[in-house]
Amino acid sequence: MDVGSTAFILAATMAVALMIPGLALFYGGMVSSRGILNMIMMVFGAVAVVGVLWTLFGFSAVFGDSYGGVGLLGDVTEYAGLGSLVAGDEEAALPPALVAVFQALFAVITTALIAGAVSDRVRFGPWLLFAGLWAALVYFPIAHWVFAFDSADGSVTGGWIANRLAAVDFAGGTAVHINAGIGALALVLVVGKRTGWPRQARPTNLPLVALGAGILWFGWFGFNGGSALAAGNSASVVMLNTFNATCAAILAWLVVEKLRDGHATTLGGMSGAIAGLVAITPACGAVSPLGALAVGPSPARSARWRSR
Amino acid sequence: MDVGSTAFILAATMAVALMIPGLALFYGGMVSSRGILNMIMMVFGAVAVVGVLWTLFGFSAVFGDSYGGVGLLGDVTEYAGLGSLVAGDEEAALPPALVAVFQALFAVITTALIAGAVSDRVRFGPWLLFAGLWAALVYFPIAHWVFAFDSADGSVTGGWIANRLAAVDFAGGTAVHINAGIGALALVLVVGKRTGWPRQARPTNLPLVALGAGILWFGWFGFNGGSALAAGNSASVVMLNTFNATCAAILAWLVVEKLRDGHATTLGGMSGAIAGLVAITPACGAVSPLGALAVGPSPARSARWRSR
Amino acid sequence: MDVGSTAFILAATMAVALMIPGLALFYGGMVSSRGILNMIMMVFGAVAVVGVLWTLFGFSAVFGDSYGGVGLLGDVTEYAGLGSLVAGDEEAALPPALVAVFQALFAVITTALIAGAVSDRVRFGPWLLFAGLWAALVYFPIAHWVFAFDSADGSVTGGWIANRLAAVDFAGGTAVHINAGIGALALVLVVGKRTGWPRQARPTNLPLVALGAGILWFGWFGFNGGSALAAGNSASVVMLNTFNATCAAILAWLVVEKLRDGHATTLGGMSGAIAGLVAITPACGAVSPLGALAVGPSPARSARWRSR
Repeated sequence: MDVGSTAFILAATMAVALMIPGLALFYGGMVSSRGILNMIMMVFGAVAVVGVLWTLFGFSAVFGDSYGGVGLLGDVTEYAGLGSLVAGDEEAALPPALVAVFQALFAVITTALIAGAVSDRVRFGPWLLFAGLWAALVYFPIAHWVFAFDSADGSVTGGWIANRLAAVDFAGGTAVHINAGIGALALVLVVGKRTGWPRQARPTNLPLVALGAGILWFGWFGFNGGSALAAGNSASVVMLNTFNATCAAILAWLVVEKLRDGHATTLGGMSGAIAGLVAITPACGAVSPLGALAVGPSPARSARWRSR
Repeated sequence: MDVGSTAFILAATMAVALMIPGLALFYGGMVSSRGILNMIMMVFGAVAVVGVLWTLFGFSAVFGDSYGGVGLLGDVTEYAGLGSLVAGDEEAALPPALVAVFQALFAVITTALIAGAVSDRVRFGPWLLFAGLWAALVYFPIAHWVFAFDSADGSVTGGWIANRLAAVDFAGGTAVHINAGIGALALVLVVGKRTGWPRQARPTNLPLVALGAGILWFGWFGFNGGSALAAGNSASVVMLNTFNATCAAILAWLVVEKLRDGHATTLGGMSGAIAGLVAITPACGAVSPLGALAVGPSPARSARWRSR
Repeated sequence: MDVGSTAFILAATMAVALMIPGLALFYGGMVSSRGILNMIMMVFGAVAVVGVLWTLFGFSAVFGDSYGGVGLLGDVTEYAGLGSLVAGDEEAALPPALVAVFQALFAVITTALIAGAVSDRVRFGPWLLFAGLWAALVYFPIAHWVFAFDSADGSVTGGWIANRLAAVDFAGGTAVHINAGIGALALVLVVGKRTGWPRQARPTNLPLVALGAGILWFGWFGFNGGSALAAGNSASVVMLNTFNATCAAILAWLVVEKLRDGHATTLGGMSGAIAGLVAITPACGAVSPLGALAVGPSPARSARWRSR
């Protein structure tokens, strides 16, 4: 076991866990005052449902041996209940239970990301049902395609995107952000427009949005840095790029708003921060620090029509 | 010295430190708008008083050699002022000063936990006096009974509960939660009912309650995981169980509320999270992940009469 | 490479990153409700500007070889763009990219500290311009004087204050706090008094001030502890002192307010916490735990005239 790297992934897991209230506030502060508590509970509720499923069979579906060796889905019974991880594995660099809880947080946060798209117009019970079904039917398979790795040496061993397409997806742009984005789009097409759309309710609490964004930035260091699966140069470069890209993204977004509307806003700056973090996530291990300064602001072009 | 484990306990100590504002918001958001600042300051004030006492003689009372070797109280002069810890101890796995600050946070947070029981009806000065006396007369001895360990190898060396009863108390259910609970009960019996009881004031700020609960969840990973005193398999299993149990507890609490009242609430879900965390704390190193799914929700039975 | 210490500095970097929203709330909660969003964005905006400059030439100005070897300024081209750090350096104890991102956070937070002095009376665009110029012309040189160290063994290699004056400045009292304080004073002399001074607007949101202070306390463990540049006894003693000093400072401030005004306040207690943290920062590696109890409250004498 690599004790130093285990220490870092334990710390990174803690940091990612703080993204749960971070996301709850980031989304909750943006909706109407009537909807803030519902939005916060949509995040915590999705986390709770998916966290339980992860233990029951989710981890196994992602990290189990692929059925038929084709890389579409892991064996849901191989690690069911996670009891077999408790004994540990001295030959692995990281304890298997640590990989399980670090990746559990990826699963729960990815599902919770979808909540923001349907604020104010889904009931809580059906949302929890959707969260569980989406995790089981969409996230677990796709995470198997992208993430399945050998915890002994951190090498990717699993899914077909990783193996056949040789995809470069450092911390999960495919399984996390593209995936949650498509899930959100599909759900929006089903539940329909928000009442009063395209008028938007005033965000109820922008200080909470900024706090949420700041907490998410913190947690994202664990999310991206921890994806290096070791305390070393790779995690360090990733953290530098995760910081850089976000700074550039905030600036770019503020400038776009200033040029477009005559003034920059808190909501714009914080949206820029999160957009920059999403943008750098899959690339954070593959670009130079100057490259990160270019990647971070790249979503700012969309700010043109974001709030119209 | 074990550098990797030292890195982890340093990180865990930081995480536990964030429980201070987490607890302040969790409690503060629940009281009336008139009482929120007082509640926040009861938490910070208790932390300040007990933190100073810890340096003066508290650490020594907990980790010093037992008077007469009977395991009731450590020698309050042995490490008084903590100056003797500064030089370090190359043969110990963890620096003694690190054990001192990690355990300092246990002492201050345990005392602050009591504050929630007497919101709105104790004055600030007497509360600070109570906090100091309770830490000195109750917490330090009981922590000696439970926690005193050898920092060289993490083995428990001290108190009679640990040695004679062979108690399994991974992260402090006895010294922390049972102890604070009994202290709170005793204090409530003295100060009497809240004005207007059993009617409750509306919680002033539920988003802050949720934020506080989320921060506490984060810090609890450091609290429970760090109690393994090493970066390794044990801390990893503990973090997995701490996550699992809380997810199950949130769900259970929401279901109980739905069945009982027809709707689940933010306060219920967040109370469930904290109740689940308290429940798993002493057991987190002793149960399987499936077991944690059962332990976490176990306090939900009490939700039946919680808000009546 | 020292894997365990790398793990700790990665965790410390994350902790310091949370100081960004911590500072934004601490300052934002103190201003009028009209000014809170502007104050929050002054913090995030300064972070964004200085973060970009850091990558472009700031790190190089601080850690590059001194021009002429006199210790006044590092070579701004040596590490420009930080691309040369990506490859890592197996002989250094810490990856160079990690030193870069850890120290980036020192630069951005120091600049953002100035924002509190000019709340409500500078426009956002000129503030961002000031932040960039101040970082480039003041912070980068002075940080070179104080901080420039050899990442292989953590020894200080650089600036004239470190070398010629043999200054004891563990975590940056000179470059960070004195420097930001003087910058704030200079800026205040230029922009003039706040409208309505000396009457103060009521702080808009004291719970956010307390949350911000609590988050800053957490991050400060990373700031001071991480300045040891290794997971070991030094970082542990520093964390213990950082905790101690703050507890004593909170208490001292509450007592001063009680004696002066007849009652202690949330704003006083939280100001005390931050003042204690500032006071202990340069000394945290040089005093005993009892010494820290004396250093922390030392700024409380100034509370006499603080809120007049």
